[in-house]
Amino acid sequence: MQAYKQLEERFGRLTALREISSFLSWDRSVLMPEKGVDQRARQMEILSVLIHDLQTADEVGEWLAQVDRKKLGDWQRANIDVMEWLYNHATAVPAALVAKKMNQETRTEVLWRQARAESNFAMVRDELARLLDIVREHAEVKGKKLKKPAYDALMDSYVPHMTSLEVDAVFDDVAAFIPGFLTAALEYQKEPLPIKGPYPRDRQEQLGRDLCGTLGFDFKWGRLDTSTHPFSMGIGDDVRITTRYNEDEFITAMQAVAHEAGHGFYDRHTPKEWHQQPVGASQNMGMGIHESQSLSIDMQLYRSRDFWEFFAPRVQKILGKSGAEYSAENLYRHATRARRGFIRVEADEITYPAHVILRYRLEKKMVEGKLEVKDLPEAWNAAMKELIGAVPPNDKLGCLQDIHWYSGAFGYFPSYALGAIIAAQLVDKMKRDIPDVMAQVRQGNIAPYTGWLRDNVQAKGCLYRPQELIEKATGAKMSTHFFKKHLTERYLEKAYGGEACSDTSAPGAKRRA
Amino acid sequence: MQAYKQLEERFGRLTALREISSFLSWDRSVLMPEKGVDQRARQMEILSVLIHDLQTADEVGEWLAQVDRKKLGDWQRANIDVMEWLYNHATAVPAALVAKKMNQETRTEVLWRQARAESNFAMVRDELARLLDIVREHAEVKGKKLKKPAYDALMDSYVPHMTSLEVDAVFDDVAAFIPGFLTAALEYQKEPLPIKGPYPRDRQEQLGRDLCGTLGFDFKWGRLDTSTHPFSMGIGDDVRITTRYNEDEFITAMQAVAHEAGHGFYDRHTPKEWHQQPVGASQNMGMGIHESQSLSIDMQLYRSRDFWEFFAPRVQKILGKSGAEYSAENLYRHATRARRGFIRVEADEITYPAHVILRYRLEKKMVEGKLEVKDLPEAWNAAMKELIGAVPPNDKLGCLQDIHWYSGAFGYFPSYALGAIIAAQLVDKMKRDIPDVMAQVRQGNIAPYTGWLRDNVQAKGCLYRPQELIEKATGAKMSTHFFKKHLTERYLEKAYGGEACSDTSAPGAKRRA
Repeated sequence: MQAYKQLEERFGRLTALREISSFLSWDRSVLMPEKGVDQRARQMEILSVLIHDLQTADEVGEWLAQVDRKKLGDWQRANIDVMEWLYNHATAVPAALVAKKMNQETRTEVLWRQARAESNFAMVRDELARLLDIVREHAEVKGKKLKKPAYDALMDSYVPHMTSLEVDAVFDDVAAFIPGFLTAALEYQKEPLPIKGPYPRDRQEQLGRDLCGTLGFDFKWGRLDTSTHPFSMGIGDDVRITTRYNEDEFITAMQAVAHEAGHGFYDRHTPKEWHQQPVGASQNMGMGIHESQSLSIDMQLYRSRDFWEFFAPRVQKILGKSGAEYSAENLYRHATRARRGFIRVEADEITYPAHVILRYRLEKKMVEGKLEVKDLPEAWNAAMKELIGAVPPNDKLGCLQDIHWYSGAFGYFPSYALGAIIAAQLVDKMKRDIPDVMAQVRQGNIAPYTGWLRDNVQAKGCLYRPQELIEKATGAKMSTHFFKKHLTERYLEKAYGGEACSDTSAPGAKRRA
Repeated sequence: MQAYKQLEERFGRLTALREISSFLSWDRSVLMPEKGVDQRARQMEILSVLIHDLQTADEVGEWLAQVDRKKLGDWQRANIDVMEWLYNHATAVPAALVAKKMNQETRTEVLWRQARAESNFAMVRDELARLLDIVREHAEVKGKKLKKPAYDALMDSYVPHMTSLEVDAVFDDVAAFIPGFLTAALEYQKEPLPIKGPYPRDRQEQLGRDLCGTLGFDFKWGRLDTSTHPFSMGIGDDVRITTRYNEDEFITAMQAVAHEAGHGFYDRHTPKEWHQQPVGASQNMGMGIHESQSLSIDMQLYRSRDFWEFFAPRVQKILGKSGAEYSAENLYRHATRARRGFIRVEADEITYPAHVILRYRLEKKMVEGKLEVKDLPEAWNAAMKELIGAVPPNDKLGCLQDIHWYSGAFGYFPSYALGAIIAAQLVDKMKRDIPDVMAQVRQGNIAPYTGWLRDNVQAKGCLYRPQELIEKATGAKMSTHFFKKHLTERYLEKAYGGEACSDTSAPGAKRRA
């Protein structure tokens, strides 16, 4: 037990320092004075060096080797599992290569901001090519250490314990489904009556706080603020989410509140007694599972007709609006409107996974040396045509739109679409477990809905690995079946004609063998 | 130079970690959700252990011993001086005694909150006596290490390089002056026309932001927020101040803005190239000098008639008020109203030093074993009678009012009154250097005023020791002469009849030999 205790002590310190680090970054995005950027960067760099040193010290490896798993309880064993994952990732790449990558990331990201503003891919092309070279080297070194293919080694940071072969199977199935389904849905959907602002910021903020109250996001342990890009951070008794307001419309700002509250619930509901340990930090489940929690709220709940039955009168009251445009049905149509759009972060439920699959396929090829930066815009546009049926008129609306690659984050994208797929599977099971859950939602009682997610997912912390958690929570292996079923029911308003689904084995899962 | 470089690297890290720590504490006071208290305490404790370990490591002592001061420039030498002061304080007391003291502080403080609420000194008496025992032990150990008398060793953390003999001389002189002067001032002062709220919080906030603008406190590098107790924190490009609003009156809230902005300017204006080193952190000059900067704004400027000539029309405009009650003269009378009050933090310029001197004398006796906790209320009331001519009706308005002793902070109080005395001396010299400085203030041009403080005090960082800085800035040793002169001119509106004052030597200073 000596080695285990030492690991707990070390990782307890690391957990606190990581909390501090995310908090410094929250402040930077939410309220730091604009000139404070350089000072904050220095503070965060010094903290990150400290974290890295404590995380990768030789004794950590020795304790991990000494620890006798047989003598540990379930949570302790899972804790060691997560520690090992963190340690292996942190020690896989030599410090010099990490520094080289960071340096090139900064250069590329700075240039990308300018290139995106001017929609000029050529401007950042060479820097991105240089960054990709380093990312490939990084992926290779990491892959050797972690005994995984190069791309998988990168992806493992964000989608732990899943292989790209498994992701391919899931994504290929969804990619084959979307184009035809999108055409049918666009044909089927009813044009909503237009709604028109301005919706003053303070009213929207009041609506956002009201929505938090409805969802059970409590300001005794949480905050709602604004930032350029919505995000969430925190744990346990201090969970903070942000949104952004646009006075022309309010549906997007509320959707961001719902999305980030979903992440926030995960951070809140892991078991309190494990909050100081890696097994209690929800982000260690990976971003796929984390997104499943935000999308269970943002997509599954917020874009449901039942929810708008309750929420439309709140909107009318707080924004001071009335008439058919603000009826539940009309607002629901706005919230679920599909289109062949160019921008991922503005995408609807149907095209969103397609945007992500496109990026996954391209980044995997780039890391594997099968696609070069100079050919990226062309490959991007071809994939857009195939999956979404729309080719962006310029690179600003195309391959320049996301920061990820330009800041060196390869392997992150798949988690977004996996989250949507997992959310559909979880909520399908929830509805079978609690047959009147959506009837309750219609009455404004969201507690059974969020309570199911808490009990079946969030309260488990990192006790199980992601795929195991899905199986425990839903009785089925991860499957695309539920996502396709969900889209069909919501966007074509009919029963899904795909393969039947049993509780223990789902069609999508079989394909992954 | 090797040792010096290593020290710079180590203290650069420590500076960043200290910045982070004050920032965590800012957030706790300003906007953290109420339930987050325990988590934040854990984060801060882990950070403070890290800071302590890095600060007290053996190699720091070795580097300090190795460094060859003759090879260093002035700023580097001063930097080493401050490092040594920090290192000596941090290593003076064994960790076990520090922990024992912290433990007793927490117990005592918790009980004090209850005792103060119920005005029941007996409730906290025994815990405070226990804490005092530990404080005495602490002071003795520290005194031996620092080669100072026990009380001086504690005071040296807040008022570095000054002895209690020197403080005695200064305070005895002021204490002899105040009672008679107070009687004369109360007789002389003209009753202002009453002003009456409510002054809505958002209007006061607007006025506070306007005041910041007037003073030159810029929101590109600063923030103004609210907290229960006003305070300031930060450095360079990220300086944050707080105030609190009471809808019944606005003068106190604005005074707190002025006070904290004064601290903020110090944090802002130490030389940027030294911000990462101890010599560039204004708090290392000690709280006496720091208070001189806040009180140069809060007392010397904000309570001047010239300032109100400019500020009264702003008040009228932003609070939407008019009439003789809101004239410059009437608001000035409110801002300078003296009284025989019980509460230090509400005190006027005349009685404020008396409140502080009382505390200094009592705490010094307690540390020296000449006053026991059981006799504190009686000693307090006797001193109140002597210095302020008013005996509090209960201990809540008496020896229970301040948190300092109950949280183990002995030796801090003198800095408050020293700050007022130093501020008077600085502003006296400023007015001789810039004869029209107050005429400029009357026009709303505060830049010459704040600029003098920046150039003569703030920009010097910790290049000089406190007493040396005062002499360099004013051409005279620290003296009570200027404070008495200031009070006489403002509160009796006549020339001060005290000893004449030359530029190189001041009467008060002579007495301190």
